[in-house]
Formats: sequence, structure tokens, C-alpha cells
Amino acid sequence: MSAGRVRVGMREAEFIDWIRRQAELDPQAVPVGPGDDCAVVVLGGEKVLVTTDQALDGVHFILSACGPEAAGQKAMARSLSDIAAMAGVPLAAVATVALPKGLSREDGEAIYRGLRRAADEFRCPVVGGDVGTWQGALAIGVTVFGRPAGGDAVLRSGAKAGDAICVTGRLGGAWRTRRHLEFTPRINEAIALAASCELHAMIDLSDGPATDLHHLCRESGVGAEVLAAAVPVHPDAADLAGALSDGEDYELLFALPAAQAEVLIRQQPLRVAVTRIGTVVAGEGVTLVHPDGRREALPASGWEHST
Amino acid sequence: MSAGRVRVGMREAEFIDWIRRQAELDPQAVPVGPGDDCAVVVLGGEKVLVTTDQALDGVHFILSACGPEAAGQKAMARSLSDIAAMAGVPLAAVATVALPKGLSREDGEAIYRGLRRAADEFRCPVVGGDVGTWQGALAIGVTVFGRPAGGDAVLRSGAKAGDAICVTGRLGGAWRTRRHLEFTPRINEAIALAASCELHAMIDLSDGPATDLHHLCRESGVGAEVLAAAVPVHPDAADLAGALSDGEDYELLFALPAAQAEVLIRQQPLRVAVTRIGTVVAGEGVTLVHPDGRREALPASGWEHST
Repeated sequence: MSAGRVRVGMREAEFIDWIRRQAELDPQAVPVGPGDDCAVVVLGGEKVLVTTDQALDGVHFILSACGPEAAGQKAMARSLSDIAAMAGVPLAAVATVALPKGLSREDGEAIYRGLRRAADEFRCPVVGGDVGTWQGALAIGVTVFGRPAGGDAVLRSGAKAGDAICVTGRLGGAWRTRRHLEFTPRINEAIALAASCELHAMIDLSDGPATDLHHLCRESGVGAEVLAAAVPVHPDAADLAGALSDGEDYELLFALPAAQAEVLIRQQPLRVAVTRIGTVVAGEGVTLVHPDGRREALPASGWEHST
Repeated sequence: MSAGRVRVGMREAEFIDWIRRQAELDPQAVPVGPGDDCAVVVLGGEKVLVTTDQALDGVHFILSACGPEAAGQKAMARSLSDIAAMAGVPLAAVATVALPKGLSREDGEAIYRGLRRAADEFRCPVVGGDVGTWQGALAIGVTVFGRPAGGDAVLRSGAKAGDAICVTGRLGGAWRTRRHLEFTPRINEAIALAASCELHAMIDLSDGPATDLHHLCRESGVGAEVLAAAVPVHPDAADLAGALSDGEDYELLFALPAAQAEVLIRQQPLRVAVTRIGTVVAGEGVTLVHPDGRREALPASGWEHST
């Protein structure tokens, strides 16, 4: 299996839907449960973001190729990216490490250094964890707590017909380089956006823009049109299809009022480019609009160039 | 490897010490960092307990023998036991599941049911998680956060010379039965104890009483004497040596003023027996005192009957 081609398969998505139906949460205590980038839990009268994620050898990284420090860094950065997706400020992290018996003490220290490198960049203390050795492969789990930067978390579910759909950065091919290992979670960008715009919905691009946009549309009860010519294709990506389906970009995709998007695009206030790639529409599903006006469905599984 | 013989080896203990030295935590924001059963983090102006732990196939359970539901239940109960060790009330949990490719959707549901069975008993909502399939074995990570029942967490570090050392329940042999899979975390017992006694220090018995008592003594800067005849040996245990070293009991071991222990032992207010097994002394190390007055060191690695 090649690292980077990480997808939430339909079976996993159905399983997560099943879990959501079982959850039976008190909306006063847990305003947001499973299914968004973070849960929101009320503690001490304040909303706290909680996210947990894992990085697994052979799925999210290839330990023999990337080394233990990069594995630790990616594990922490993936969870921080979930905090970014809610426009949150990270407060603290804990980690579990299932350490293969063959790894040395130095490898363990390297994993910790990687975790810390990603966390320190956002002054997020690593306050605890659990290390256990086993016969299995390296598995790292990271839970991060945060607070919504703007008082309220930005969910996946608030996109409205007419909203502009924007992304940070350029998309595709991250898994061909070390970019999927050493990316910077868009925490600062999300905080800046939340302070200056009315973010209706946001998600981080881990599964691939096509898949993640479908998630956002489904949670918001809307559809979307994406302009093929507008998608910022990364030089690492093979082509537009790759940009829309590769995943592991860990950029932000967000919906906001079109007039605000216009200002944002003109001013470019972030250290990374913001690009409008499309529009939220009533209905459901995502349509890819080609430069010649041809329209075709952009499936959640990504798009294969058909001609 | 037999499940249940789980130990924090000296190499792991040294690694955890190394991590503690790296931590650089702000004591205002993180009053308790790595090294206790939970971290204590100030969130929303309140002290919040945070613990993360993992349950790994071949270490903490044997999936082929116990099935997926018991694996899930144990994973959740282990983290809840860490909340109990701080005299905490669990508030919410998140879980990661690294699911072997060979497992079915039904197996996934069974793991979730197991997690929920343990959590529901303490009205602890499972608010989020991450499920990923991989080529590896089943690894479950559970993070639980809670609040200190008495306002302040009970740490490992407060034991004082002269304190009585008590345990709940009976010790040893848990891994010979399903007890190490289906135990009830001593949350309610810890809350009751914290409400009625001045708990100076507490730990849950996961690694084995000898090891865990050493942890508590080391953190408190004290030593301990254990009366061999007083140790409540579980019928499942082979003998006293087993009771002191088997581990996986998930009972509580705690230090409190001797006069309070006397009342507690007489009244037996818990649903599980409380037994005084010894006394905190100045100095360091743990001494086992036999009925004939013979004294011998009780090493952290457990005790082998020598005659």
C-alpha cells in the first residue's frame, strides 16, 4: 500500500454513520459529537474542541522510508489540522505510541521529537501519553484539545447556497514528496480567517478535495459546483484529477459569503494563497464545470479524467 | 506472549523519565504533566483530568481468544481506571481503533459496543474517534477526560511517613480468568473515598502491586512496609508472590492518615472490601514483612518466594 492514498472508504463512512446513530449525546454537554473534524464538549461553561486521530505504519507513513521522527511529526500535525478545521487554538495534546519490539530507545526519542516539533510550533504542550511495546507495527494516536478561536467552532454543516468555496494553498501530489509528512497545519490561517470572515463551514483536506467537499456538502445539506479551471493544481500533482483526489494536502476548504470571498481573494491576507474554486448550490452532489461549459458529476471517490 | 503479564519495563520507565525531563510545561496551565495516572490541565478555568491509554492485541488482550467486544471494553475500562486513580469523575471519551483488514463490520460494531459498555456504566459519553483499517493487529487507544471529584486530583506524590497503605478488593491472578477483561473501574469507590477521607496519594493497580507501590513511593519520596499476612490474595492467584506481582487487578492502592484508615476498615463503606496492607515510612524502597518478623526487600519487579 502506498502511503498518502488514504481514503475513508464507503464501508468506513457507513460505519461512522452507524456510530453517530448510536451516540445518544446530550446536546447541552456535547454540542458536536462524532462526524465533524472535532467534537465540541462543554467544560467549565466553555466549549472545548476534542479530536483524536491515528497515524499507522503502511497507511499514513512508511516507517522504513520516512523514519520515526517524521512519523511522530505527521501524527501530531494530523490532529492539529483537525483543530484548524474548526478554527481552533490548540491547548494540549496527549499521545499513544505502540512501539514495535525491534525499535530502539533512540527511535522512541525520535518519535517524541517529531510529535513535539509539530506541537511546539503552536505552543501546544504534550501533557501525557502512553508508550507500549508490541509485536505489531508502529501506531501513533494523538488527541488534541483546543478552544474555538472565535468563541464558536466552525463546523462542516453551515454552508449555504450562494456561498463561495475557497481553499488554501495548492492541491495534489503531496504523497509523492515529504509534503504529506512535513506539512504545517493551517492553524494560524484558520484563526485569521475566522477573525476576518463569516466562515459558514470548513474542513481540512485529508481524504482528497473531492471526498472532503462531499463530506461538507452532505453535512450542510447542499450541493456544490467546482470550476475545473480554478482549482490550484500543485506542481507535484499529475493533473487536475490528481489535485482533486490525491488527498493528504492538509489545506483548508471553506464556505463563506461570496462578497467576503471576493475581498479575501483580492487582499490575500494569509501567508498561503487563497483560491475560490466554486460555489455552494441548493440540492446535493458536486458538479465539476469544465472551461468549455461541459458539466459532469464529481464523485466522492475522486475524478478520473474521462477523455 | 500471555496477556495480562503487562509490565512497564525498566527501559520504558526510563523512557518515560526522559519524556518528563523534556516536557517544559507551564505549571499554571498544566499543573500535572506526564508521569501520573492522568495529566491535569486547566481548560475553561477548571482543572481537567486527561488520560490516554492503549490496549494492544497480544499485550493487553488476545483477540482470537477474547473477541472484539471484550477488547473494546477493556480498552475503555483501562482509561477509566486512570481517572479513578486520581479520584475523578469521567466526563467524555474519544477512541482510536486500528482495525486489521481481516475484521468485519460486525467486529467493528462489537468493539464499539465494548467501549460503550464500559463507558455507559459511568455515563461517560464517547464523543468522537477515528477508525482506520490496516495490515497490522488490533490497537485501540482511548483518551478520557474528567474532573477531580473533590475539586483537586489525588496524585501519586502525596504519601507521608506514617500513612496507612490500603487496597480495594483482592489481588492476583486476574489474567487467568476474564477478570482482566471485564473488571469494573473503581470510579465510584474512588469518589466515595475522596469524599470521606484525606487521600494523600493513590494509584490504580495495573502493573502489579509491587511495581505500582514503588511508583507511588518514588513519586512521594517515601518508602513503604507491606505486611505479607495482610495482603488480600485473590483465589485466582497462585500465592502471595502472584498477588504482589501479577498485575491487571485494576484495584486502587492509596495512602491516608492511619486513624482514618482504621475507621474506613471498620466501617467498610464500599461495595468492595478495603484492606490495610502496610505503612508509609521515611526513606525509600519497599520492605515486605513476614509473619515471623523476617524482613526482605520487595523489588519493583515483584517478589519471588525464596524458600
